[in-house]
Parts: sequence; C-alpha cells; structure tokens
Amino acid sequence: MTTAERTATLTGQMIIAGEYVTGSGTAIHAINPATDERLQPAYAYGTADHVARATAAAAAAFPIYRNTTSADRADFLDAIADNLDAATEDLVERATAETGLPVGRITGEVGRTSGQLRLFAAVLREGSWNGARIDPAMPDRTPLPRADIRQRKVPLGPVAVFGASNFPLAFSVAGGDTASALAAGCPVVVKAHEAHPGTSELVGRAVTEAIAATGMPAGTFSLLYGSGRELGIALVTDPAIKAVGFTGSRSGGTALVAAAASRPEPIPVYAEMSSINPVYPLPGALRAGAADLGRAFIGSLTLGSGQFCTNPGLVIAVDSPDLDTFIEAAAEAVAASTPTAMLTPNIARSYANGVDDFTGAATVVARGTDTTEPNTCRAALFVTDADTFLGSETLQQEIFGSSSLIVKSRDAQQVREVTAKLEGQLTATIHTDDTDHAEAGDLLQILELKAGRILFNGWPTGVEVGHAMVHGGPFPATSDSRTTSVGSLAIERFLRPVAYQDVPTALLPSAIADGNPDQIWRRIDGELTRN
Amino acid sequence: MTTAERTATLTGQMIIAGEYVTGSGTAIHAINPATDERLQPAYAYGTADHVARATAAAAAAFPIYRNTTSADRADFLDAIADNLDAATEDLVERATAETGLPVGRITGEVGRTSGQLRLFAAVLREGSWNGARIDPAMPDRTPLPRADIRQRKVPLGPVAVFGASNFPLAFSVAGGDTASALAAGCPVVVKAHEAHPGTSELVGRAVTEAIAATGMPAGTFSLLYGSGRELGIALVTDPAIKAVGFTGSRSGGTALVAAAASRPEPIPVYAEMSSINPVYPLPGALRAGAADLGRAFIGSLTLGSGQFCTNPGLVIAVDSPDLDTFIEAAAEAVAASTPTAMLTPNIARSYANGVDDFTGAATVVARGTDTTEPNTCRAALFVTDADTFLGSETLQQEIFGSSSLIVKSRDAQQVREVTAKLEGQLTATIHTDDTDHAEAGDLLQILELKAGRILFNGWPTGVEVGHAMVHGGPFPATSDSRTTSVGSLAIERFLRPVAYQDVPTALLPSAIADGNPDQIWRRIDGELTRN
Repeated sequence: MTTAERTATLTGQMIIAGEYVTGSGTAIHAINPATDERLQPAYAYGTADHVARATAAAAAAFPIYRNTTSADRADFLDAIADNLDAATEDLVERATAETGLPVGRITGEVGRTSGQLRLFAAVLREGSWNGARIDPAMPDRTPLPRADIRQRKVPLGPVAVFGASNFPLAFSVAGGDTASALAAGCPVVVKAHEAHPGTSELVGRAVTEAIAATGMPAGTFSLLYGSGRELGIALVTDPAIKAVGFTGSRSGGTALVAAAASRPEPIPVYAEMSSINPVYPLPGALRAGAADLGRAFIGSLTLGSGQFCTNPGLVIAVDSPDLDTFIEAAAEAVAASTPTAMLTPNIARSYANGVDDFTGAATVVARGTDTTEPNTCRAALFVTDADTFLGSETLQQEIFGSSSLIVKSRDAQQVREVTAKLEGQLTATIHTDDTDHAEAGDLLQILELKAGRILFNGWPTGVEVGHAMVHGGPFPATSDSRTTSVGSLAIERFLRPVAYQDVPTALLPSAIADGNPDQIWRRIDGELTRN
Repeated sequence: MTTAERTATLTGQMIIAGEYVTGSGTAIHAINPATDERLQPAYAYGTADHVARATAAAAAAFPIYRNTTSADRADFLDAIADNLDAATEDLVERATAETGLPVGRITGEVGRTSGQLRLFAAVLREGSWNGARIDPAMPDRTPLPRADIRQRKVPLGPVAVFGASNFPLAFSVAGGDTASALAAGCPVVVKAHEAHPGTSELVGRAVTEAIAATGMPAGTFSLLYGSGRELGIALVTDPAIKAVGFTGSRSGGTALVAAAASRPEPIPVYAEMSSINPVYPLPGALRAGAADLGRAFIGSLTLGSGQFCTNPGLVIAVDSPDLDTFIEAAAEAVAASTPTAMLTPNIARSYANGVDDFTGAATVVARGTDTTEPNTCRAALFVTDADTFLGSETLQQEIFGSSSLIVKSRDAQQVREVTAKLEGQLTATIHTDDTDHAEAGDLLQILELKAGRILFNGWPTGVEVGHAMVHGGPFPATSDSRTTSVGSLAIERFLRPVAYQDVPTALLPSAIADGNPDQIWRRIDGELTRN
C-alpha cells in the first residue's frame, strides 16, 4: 500500500459504540509539524449529542462488560494488542507525520502500548486485582457472633480518557489509562487529542475490531473528536461518567478537576500534569566525571524535543569547579544540538514563550543551533543561583520542551532547602558515587515526599512499564498522588471495594466464593493464601 | 473515685504536642442531653494560632515518626489501646453523661476502639501495608536493559481528623481515622467534637501518655477544640495538613471537601456523610415471617436513638398482604418504643424538623410514645408509594435518628427502578429465603454499584471491625468511594506509592531491601512471595 492508499483508508469519523459517525462541529486537520503540511482527511468535531450517545452506550455496556470474566477481558486486551502490533506500519507512518517524532520512537511506542495492554491482561489472569478478602463467620463468638464478611473490588463505571499530545499511542486512545480502565471492567469514552486524529482513528479501529472479535458489548469503547473546553467538559460532567484519566497541561488538568468536583456526584480525576523533574549531581558523581554527566544530561533533555513529562528541567547542585565543568559540557552539547520539530505549532510557540520568560529571569548558558525549519525546539540551558530561583515564580514553572535550568547552591544544606520548597514532581534523580551516600540519604528523605519516582545514576526520560513503576506524584505532578498512571498498580484507580455480609453461597461472586474457584490470592482473616 | 473527683481531673485544656494548653476563644460546656445538665469543666476554643502550633509540631514530628519501624508504631498503637482499656470506667462515666448513650453501648465502644487500634498494630506487624514490589534489573534485555525498580508506600503527611458526634470513642479522638493515620505513619491533629469534650480530653491523654511511654515525637498527636467553620477550616487549609478524615453531616463534609480542593495544593478528604441504607424484604422472606421481620427492623431502627450512619432509613418492597403484615408489626413496635435521649439538643431539634418535613410528604404509620424528657428521639415510621418517593426530594433525604420510610412498589421491576435512582449508600440490606435468589441476584447487580456493604438477612446497624469490612460507598455516603473508614483497608487512605529506581543497596528502605529483612509479602516481577 502506498502512503496515499493508507491515508485513504482513514475516514475522519468518530467511533460511537462500534458505529462510524461523522461529526457535525468544527472540522480540523492534523498538521505535520515538521513541514506545516495539512494532512487529510478532515476530522469534524463531535457535539454534546455525540457525547450523550457515547456515554449512554457506555452506561448500557457497563453491566454486561463488568460481569465478563477476568480471562475474557484479558483475551480482549490481548486482541487489542495484537491488532495494534499488526497495524504497526500504518501507525508509524501516520503518527510520525502527525507528531514529527521519528520512526524509531513511534515503532517503540507501538510496542510499548501493546505491551501495556498485555501487562494488564496478565494482571487480570493473576487475579489479585480483585482485592479478595474473607473474614469467616464466628457464630460462637461472645458477646456477639461475627457475620461472614467478604470483600472484593468492583469497577467504578464508564471512564473518560483524554489522549495526550506527547505519546500518540502509549498515553492516548489505547494507552495506559484506557488499558487499565478496560482491565478494571470500565467502558471507556476517549476524547482524541486533536494533534493526532488519524493515529487515534487507526487505534480506535484496532479496539473496535477487538471488541467485535471477542464479543464484548459495543458500548465498551467510543472515540470522539472535539475541543477540551466544550466536548471535554461535556464528557467529564456527564452523569454516566464515573472517573477521568488525563495527561496534559496543568491548566487543562485543573479545569477537569474543577468540573468533576462541581458535579452533583463528584468523581475522581487522575490528571497527570506538570513536573520539572529535578536532577541532583552530587559532588562525588561530579568529581568522577562531570563532563560525561553534563553531556548525558543534554542527551536526556533533548530526546524527543524534550517533550516528556519526565524531562529533566531542573538541576540543583552545590557550586564548585566540577559543577562548572558539568555546565560547560552541557552547554557545548546544547550548542551542538540540532533543533527538531515539536508536536504542534502551538506547543512550539509555548516553548519559545517559556524560554523568553526564562531569558529575563536567569542567565542563558547555551542555545541549540538556529534553523528555519518550522515548529522546532531550539534547546536552551539556563543557570541561576538558589536565592534567585526561590524568589522567582517564573523559574519554578515547567517549560514543555528541551529547556533546563541549573540552580547553583552554596552548600548541601541549601540544596535541601531549595528541594523542600519545590512543588510535587513525577521524578527526582540523584547522581552519586560511593562517597555521596550520606548526602543522598538526606535528599532521599525529602524527595520521598515530593516525587513519585526517585532514580539514581540514570535519567528520568524512560518510564519502564512494569509492576513496580510509579508514574505519579504529589500535586501538581498529578491531581491524585495515591496512584500511578503507568504500571500494573494503575488498575486500582478504577476500582472500589464492596463488602458482602452473609451473602448466600449461590449469589457470591467467584472471586470471593467458597473453595476459591478463581484460584487467586485472597486474604482470609488477614492472612494471604491461595487455598 | 467519685464522679466529682473524676470530673475534677478534667482540665478543659487542649493538647498540643504533649503540652496542655488553655484555649482563648469561646468557652463551651458539654450538655448531658438526658437531663440538660451543663457539665464541668468549660472548654475554651482554640484559635488559628493553636492550629498553627499543632500543625507545625505535626510537620516537625513527621520526618521522625514516619521513619519509626512498623514494630515500633505497632507498640505505640497497642499502648494507646491499653491506656484506653485502663480508662474504661472514666470513659464510660463521662461519655454516657455527654452523649446520653447507655453504659453497655459505651463499654462496648471502648473495647471496639482499643480493638481497632490493635487491629492496625497487627496490620503493621504483618507488613503488606508497605505495598512492596520489586521488578529486578534485566541488564541483558534488548533493545534496552531494564533498571532495578522497587515500590513501597509512604505516608502522606500530617492528617486532620474530625471527631464524630455519634461515636464518642470509635469515630472520634482515637477512632478509626486516627488509628489508621497513625498506623500509616502520619501525625494526627484532631478537632474534638464539641458534644463530648471531656471524653475527648480523656482519650487525648491516653494517646499523649502512650506517645511518652513509647518514645514517639510529641507532635505526633494534638487535640484541639473549636468550631467546624473556623478552627475546622483553618485546619483543613493549613499547608502542613496532607489529608482529612471526617464523619458527620453532608453539609459539613462537603464544606471540608470544597476547602481542601481550593487549597494551592489540594488534598484528599475522606468524609463519611449521608446514607439512608435501603432494606429490601423480598417476597419469600416476608412470607416466611413478616411480623418477626417487622419487629426486628424496628429493633435496628431504634437502637441508640437511631444515631447510626447505617441506620435503616428506607424500606423498599413490593406491595402485598405480607408487606402489610410487616408494616403492621413494625408500626406496633414503633408505637411501643420509648423515646431515648439523642446526642445533643441540636440533633434532637434537627430530628424533629426532619420528621415534620416527612409528615407533610408521606403517610405517618406510627410514632413512638410521647415524653416530656428533654432531647429525645420519638421514633417515626412512614409509608409512601414508589412514584411519590421518586418525585420527592424531601423523602430521599436522610433523617438522622429513628425514622424510616417504607416505599411500596408495584412489582420487582419498580423496586429496581427506585433502587437505580438512589444516591450512594453505606449499606444495603436484602432479606430473602431460598425462593428469592433470582430477584436478590438482580438487586445485587444494582446495589454493588450503589453501596459499600451489602448484607443479607441481618441489619446494617452493626459494623464489624475486620479485614473485609467496607464502611464507605459512592457519594454522598462518602466523598471517596475508593476506600473504607472501618477495617484494615483504611490504612491505604493515608499512603501513596513511591518507585525507587537503581537506588544503592545501602539506601533502600527495609521493606524493599534485598533479602527481605522485614519478612513481608512482596510482589517480585508481579508474583507474591515472602522469600
């Protein structure tokens, strides 16, 4: 198939419970940010009516979908994963055009997305997600007998998912939010990100075909196009929606949180928003190789035009000749860096504005090479001192893109003082050698309360999908620090516990039935057992 | 000791980080609601300064307290429990006077409260609360090696707890919220309920003495007196406070939720608020013994003047001669019921007003006997039809006290329709015999999405403290359905996960250290193990 033929298969339609529907609102096109080319076809926005149809279908599907077995939902997730893998070539072609991201990155992201779906399939088959607990009856207890009480988790209901701009696959239509919500037994209504509607349509098809192939109810999934302010708010305030997953800006996230809180029935919003991801090169690590560290830092900073939630936007260190070496090497790497396209013209403009704001507030150490290519991210490195940093609201903001600020501190104490005043973060990174452990331990004590993930001697811009990962953190990194949007723990966001007291054997859900028919881990009188 | 001597030991003082401090605001006295007697001493309200001192002390204690071992915190909780048990006689005397509740009830509640503390001590010793997960490094993985990633849970920070009126011990100063927060490693600042300040002081001493005896930092616990609107809001909006536990009214809970959401750093509020706890006597159960069921219903309804969050305020059933027999027996039991004192004059007034409102909206079936005793709850039983119920906002509200409404429905379908329109509930109760299972199964499907606990052939007014209990439910039963305020799962409200990536062995917390030194259950690459 040629590019034109593949693009010709895109319809520009939304998907509402298995039906392909043309929107009736504003029509938008994706823009190739590397060329400013307008991509076909047009995607017409949906209206409040489309939201109502999608949520009604989700509400109708919910009682059926939530009662499917873990094994059936696992097969469904695997089928989506297989469909995505099979569509890799189309996805890479369309997503690279829509995002300006390179082929290798998008290829990897398809694999990550299907891998994520398969991880949740494994979580379903393992069964601990049920949170099964049984406190058996004690009819002879005095002064009062104890009833038979059992607990399991049930899904919250239909979930609204907002696709992110920066991961057109892994945090988008069938990304982590969708995978974990579907695993939990929640139908999903996705608002596609307007920057990659074609990629979204391709992924929406993959999900829709998996629904048909595995016999899930059609309303389990819908895909809508629309603006955040209109269609997005309509979705979050729809009574059928019971939770929200979002990855994006702080202003967008807080608007959704406010809308959800003002509903007659408030609902949880899992918004992953803003993080500057501090990095701490400690004296021993700098002594051991300041220049290498400085170059590696810029490698992480400029990866994917710096468009990662975990981009290292802040370095905090004690002033020293070694730190100067680190800065010098970093500055050289920045100066040698070639600007690459950002995701959208808007994002590129915001980046340039953010760098302009910083330029007035801190010292520019280096900028990437200049270019006439459109929508590029010209890397930027700034330096300031701790007092200036603490006194500046501007310098404490996130710039989305390859910009970072080095904060020189007087001593280790001041490094900790600056750290204690930071807002919540997705990540914090410490570079050490063996001589730094005391200082690292002190920092760790503060960072545990500030960040969702603390990493040593690496860079935050890779987020492993596994059981132990936390991609979350205190506000404003996320709107709910008690959870993660990456990794298997993410399923818990869409579940709540229910207790069953003296429920007749015939009516007990299998997860908490006598004899453990699902053969899952359960807590009997507080003790974990698979018997 | 005589009553006067015991009362003489009360100081009327707040406790701020181990110091006894006299408030400088409005002075209040507890009122014995059974006699309208004003009890000594006076309790002067604290001010914003007292809040600031208590939260600063909590913030200072937090880094020390959260790093105590699980075993040490367990010993601390056990010490509080022992102190409470040792103070049973004083607590019973003062709490019965302050609440009008009978000796047997308060005696039981002391045991429940100390039992709750010991349950969380056991949870700490068992160790699963850490949520330990390890995904070991895979240095040889292609295309990219995998880092070593570990996860554990850390406490959120200082917690504000609001004492409830209706459980002066179990949901108050050292009740479930405090016990679970302390177990999680969070210092606690309690706002005592103004209805039982003396009981609160006695319990506050028990906690304070346990802190001294077990060497915990003084700021781990403070006890303040004040109004909800002033001191309460000051507490919730204090930057040092990171979560809130509350049991009380819908208006009070939603005010705290709004205050917490409007902070620069929003924080979670666990408010247990409003529930009418529907009861479903199904046809077979009514056939088997409608009169007995009707009498048992009123036994549950009038227990403790109906002042339980789980009081059965609504009965939904298909109209039938058996239902009439149930209503007749219930009406006789109500008519024979002797009014008993409510917790406070205000609560008694609100109850009377609520019953007046219902009297205009539904048919009065029976009232309890009249009395000239002060502040009593004169039981009330109403009946209406399903259409009237669904059309009336009044009838869908909670009346706190021994009032219940029976909703007659045309058929099982209408029972389900009414149920589907109910707000979220703490409990739902189904009475069945073997012939009712199909209908019960259909109801269960709806109720699982409406209630935190579903019970069969019993009454909701007993809440067992154990591992499987859920005392929670969708809004407005609580402000956060994803959790419970009773039972061992409650500890999770005050924890958040943190990931540790490639952290040097010497710096790893013991819960996720190599060799499992804490000998706890951990998830290694997704598999539970204690190795």
